Amino acid sequence: MKKIKSEYELLRQRIYIIVYGSNTVAGRLFDIVLLGVILLSVLLVMLESVEHLDQKYHSTIIVLEWIITVCFTLEYVLRILCNKKPFTFIFSFYGIVDFISILPMYLSFFIPGSRILSVIRALRLLRLFGILNLVHITGQESQLKLAIKASRSKIIVFIYFVLIVSILLGAIMYVVEGKESGFTSIPTSIYWCIVTLTTVGYGDIAPVTIPGQIIASCIMILGYGIIAVPTGIVTAEFTAAKRNQKSIQIAKKCPSCSTIVTVEDAKYCYHCGEKLDNE
Amino acid sequence: MKKIKSEYELLRQRIYIIVYGSNTVAGRLFDIVLLGVILLSVLLVMLESVEHLDQKYHSTIIVLEWIITVCFTLEYVLRILCNKKPFTFIFSFYGIVDFISILPMYLSFFIPGSRILSVIRALRLLRLFGILNLVHITGQESQLKLAIKASRSKIIVFIYFVLIVSILLGAIMYVVEGKESGFTSIPTSIYWCIVTLTTVGYGDIAPVTIPGQIIASCIMILGYGIIAVPTGIVTAEFTAAKRNQKSIQIAKKCPSCSTIVTVEDAKYCYHCGEKLDNE
Amino acid sequence: MKKIKSEYELLRQRIYIIVYGSNTVAGRLFDIVLLGVILLSVLLVMLESVEHLDQKYHSTIIVLEWIITVCFTLEYVLRILCNKKPFTFIFSFYGIVDFISILPMYLSFFIPGSRILSVIRALRLLRLFGILNLVHITGQESQLKLAIKASRSKIIVFIYFVLIVSILLGAIMYVVEGKESGFTSIPTSIYWCIVTLTTVGYGDIAPVTIPGQIIASCIMILGYGIIAVPTGIVTAEFTAAKRNQKSIQIAKKCPSCSTIVTVEDAKYCYHCGEKLDNE
Amino acid sequence: MKKIKSEYELLRQRIYIIVYGSNTVAGRLFDIVLLGVILLSVLLVMLESVEHLDQKYHSTIIVLEWIITVCFTLEYVLRILCNKKPFTFIFSFYGIVDFISILPMYLSFFIPGSRILSVIRALRLLRLFGILNLVHITGQESQLKLAIKASRSKIIVFIYFVLIVSILLGAIMYVVEGKESGFTSIPTSIYWCIVTLTTVGYGDIAPVTIPGQIIASCIMILGYGIIAVPTGIVTAEFTAAKRNQKSIQIAKKCPSCSTIVTVEDAKYCYHCGEKLDNE
Repeated sequence: MKKIKSEYELLRQRIYIIVYGSNTVAGRLFDIVLLGVILLSVLLVMLESVEHLDQKYHSTIIVLEWIITVCFTLEYVLRILCNKKPFTFIFSFYGIVDFISILPMYLSFFIPGSRILSVIRALRLLRLFGILNLVHITGQESQLKLAIKASRSKIIVFIYFVLIVSILLGAIMYVVEGKESGFTSIPTSIYWCIVTLTTVGYGDIAPVTIPGQIIASCIMILGYGIIAVPTGIVTAEFTAAKRNQKSIQIAKKCPSCSTIVTVEDAKYCYHCGEKLDNE
Repeated sequence: MKKIKSEYELLRQRIYIIVYGSNTVAGRLFDIVLLGVILLSVLLVMLESVEHLDQKYHSTIIVLEWIITVCFTLEYVLRILCNKKPFTFIFSFYGIVDFISILPMYLSFFIPGSRILSVIRALRLLRLFGILNLVHITGQESQLKLAIKASRSKIIVFIYFVLIVSILLGAIMYVVEGKESGFTSIPTSIYWCIVTLTTVGYGDIAPVTIPGQIIASCIMILGYGIIAVPTGIVTAEFTAAKRNQKSIQIAKKCPSCSTIVTVEDAKYCYHCGEKLDNE
Repeated sequence: MKKIKSEYELLRQRIYIIVYGSNTVAGRLFDIVLLGVILLSVLLVMLESVEHLDQKYHSTIIVLEWIITVCFTLEYVLRILCNKKPFTFIFSFYGIVDFISILPMYLSFFIPGSRILSVIRALRLLRLFGILNLVHITGQESQLKLAIKASRSKIIVFIYFVLIVSILLGAIMYVVEGKESGFTSIPTSIYWCIVTLTTVGYGDIAPVTIPGQIIASCIMILGYGIIAVPTGIVTAEFTAAKRNQKSIQIAKKCPSCSTIVTVEDAKYCYHCGEKLDNE
Repeated sequence: MKKIKSEYELLRQRIYIIVYGSNTVAGRLFDIVLLGVILLSVLLVMLESVEHLDQKYHSTIIVLEWIITVCFTLEYVLRILCNKKPFTFIFSFYGIVDFISILPMYLSFFIPGSRILSVIRALRLLRLFGILNLVHITGQESQLKLAIKASRSKIIVFIYFVLIVSILLGAIMYVVEGKESGFTSIPTSIYWCIVTLTTVGYGDIAPVTIPGQIIASCIMILGYGIIAVPTGIVTAEFTAAKRNQKSIQIAKKCPSCSTIVTVEDAKYCYHCGEKLDNE
């Protein structure tokens, strides 16, 4: 009895190494196959939405989708089984993503058309970071995250400001332009105002009256100035991050004159010539 | 007589704490309810402008609008009554906003359709900063303000430059493209030029002749370069602000003359030459 | 004879002070009137181009234009007469602008429709900087110029790069999309490519084929990255300018330990406590 | 026999100096002529694509194209012959470009319409950098390259992130908007999403339903924040580059160990502790 248990345990570990690890040949292979399947699955959902393709290859797509779903289900089950604490996985980000990405297909039995939701699988592409083992790049990513996180609160205030401006200007444009030139309601005007402030400018709605165009011009120039703000915030964060990163790495304090020496491979204090201890 | 006065005085203070303060339960509740009412009021104005919704629920909306207006009026009166110096409130920014936001409804008796102006209530959303007591974020906001203020004069010159460029290029495009391709007048051309320089690009007006398209291309690339300028200005300000902020962190206080020394590895106060203690 | 000469000389000087100077009442008045006339003249050219307005007030506009032209001519003559070295003025930037801005009206006798060119007067608006005596702002302007000048050569290389990219991608899109979807010729495709790279996106021409849309997406994301370059260049210049400006203003060298003290109103070296000589 | 060899060798060198060098009159002339021919060739391909021009001057264009192709072929042969190690040239970037730029014409015998590909000649414009001997600017260019290279990995992660976001949001919009409003398939929706995120905004596809417009607004504001990221990255790199560049300016060379000391007010070499002479 015990023997079986230990054997099972051994198996569990073997699978664990393959499924979660990526430093063994089997693990690496598993990862690459998985990546391929994910890409395929996303591709399928896309193709299915293209009508003339769907009509041609409908059955093929369905079959493939089911195969993929089964693969994913197996993988999901494996991940749970071979994991020492399955619940930590189930309720982890990836765990939830994996679950959601297989759900729609099974739902499609009860709710037709819910299969379209299986595009959520795209989220699984995030595994790419893990799979390709992009240590360097993910390092970068974390730096990205840091800078973005640091400037988040500023960005929120900023967006909040943009929204209020949009509401006010949108209402004004609605009053000025009137219904016949596309500004059919205040929400629509607000939508147009955001489109303009963000310099997207679809042109599906555009002012036609002279006063409307004057106000629009002001909004654009305003947006011109406004677009500088988030850029400024994020850039400042990046620059600061870069400066700190550099100076922190290599700062040493001079024992005699206590100057902070921020030069790579400095052996002597550049101020008093004192020897520095490089431990 | 005196007793009544003092009682009234007591009441006034109680109300004041509720209306202006936000550290008591009642005060907090008052704020949150107020916020809800403001959001609702803005929402109503929007919905009213959507025709098919307006036709359905016209009477409901009107009733609700009146209820809100009454609430706002009461609040406004309360704020005046319970304030020691009412006039300072009346002529303060929020005081004026509050007044304007209740005006349109009453005006709508005499001037029909003036009710649309009640979208000005959106400005009341600014109270959100106060209500949600976003100390941290408003701190950010003030920093935003600072950086924007510092780069204002530059921005003005810049906008002024953009306008002159737009006028000149607009006129040129008017001459080059002519009326049939949408450039019906110089003001319209200027409007188009601003739309292009700001990279909004509605496409409601677009050059069709080869020379026109060549000039347009130049304008775009010009705008490409130009858009860098405000960003550069604002970013420089932000970076500077950040640097100062950092230098404040490393600040030391001189024991003798209590100057704030904001120089890394400073050993002596640069103001009185006193030795600083670097613990 | 001599007396007359000296009298004339005296008059010349008086006029000079009025026309060129702006610290006397008369001079200030002259400037403001001039500014008003310039604005009016630009406005007129615009209004004239608006058909229905032109039809109504044609004669009025013509009359006003002639009055303005006469005013400008007089001013131009005055500036030449009362100037000690008239040629330096005539061939100065403003001199040429003034001349060009009066030319079109007189030309309109011989070449009908050349009057439209009188929009060149807009250039006279540049005098605003001088007239409003914006010392502070012009200071900013010069800083703007400096930063832009410093980053010019980089920008040129950049634009040059953008053009080559546009030519190549434009040609590719022409081959991929073909004539029926708006890409009628390579120049048009290049025009479209610039419109896309600069994120203007009129939408007068847009890809319709799947491969075309894929390439377009790549171009956009490319443009996304590219737009960062000029901004980065200019911003770097601004930041550097700001840093230097600040540190240069206030740098002092310590006589004993020759530390460069870059703290405003520093009286003592913060490194060795030595007194600094503030001359 | 030997004599001829040496004579040939002499000739080879003469040609080499003319073809590759640009410090002799002949070499300079060769370069300028080449540049002219390249520009002409690119121009021709463009003109040919303009129908009404092509119909008029078809034969002329063809003749000119053949002349140019022959010139290029000759040049290509010369470059190979007069080069000591021809293969290094053949497989160098310019070598391949030169080859590709002459290929299409000859191919056009077998594959009609392949002549259009000769627009690839545009790549030859890159020689401009070499020809105009823009030492300064190319210096800038290399700096550009450096900064872009440094921020490449960040940009890749960023683009990768943008793509995933586009796929997800594109799919959502496809579900929300449906076929009748232009979102005919998920790929199309993704294309639209990229168009929106990059603030290009053609407007060939635009949301019409209220929920669609709300989501679109969010996407735009998101794109607003996102566009800040690459700019921030590149700018940070540029600023860093600039700072280093500056520190090189203030560099001092240590007399004993000849280390380059790039610290302001450094008095001792931080490498060997030797005193530096600050004149």
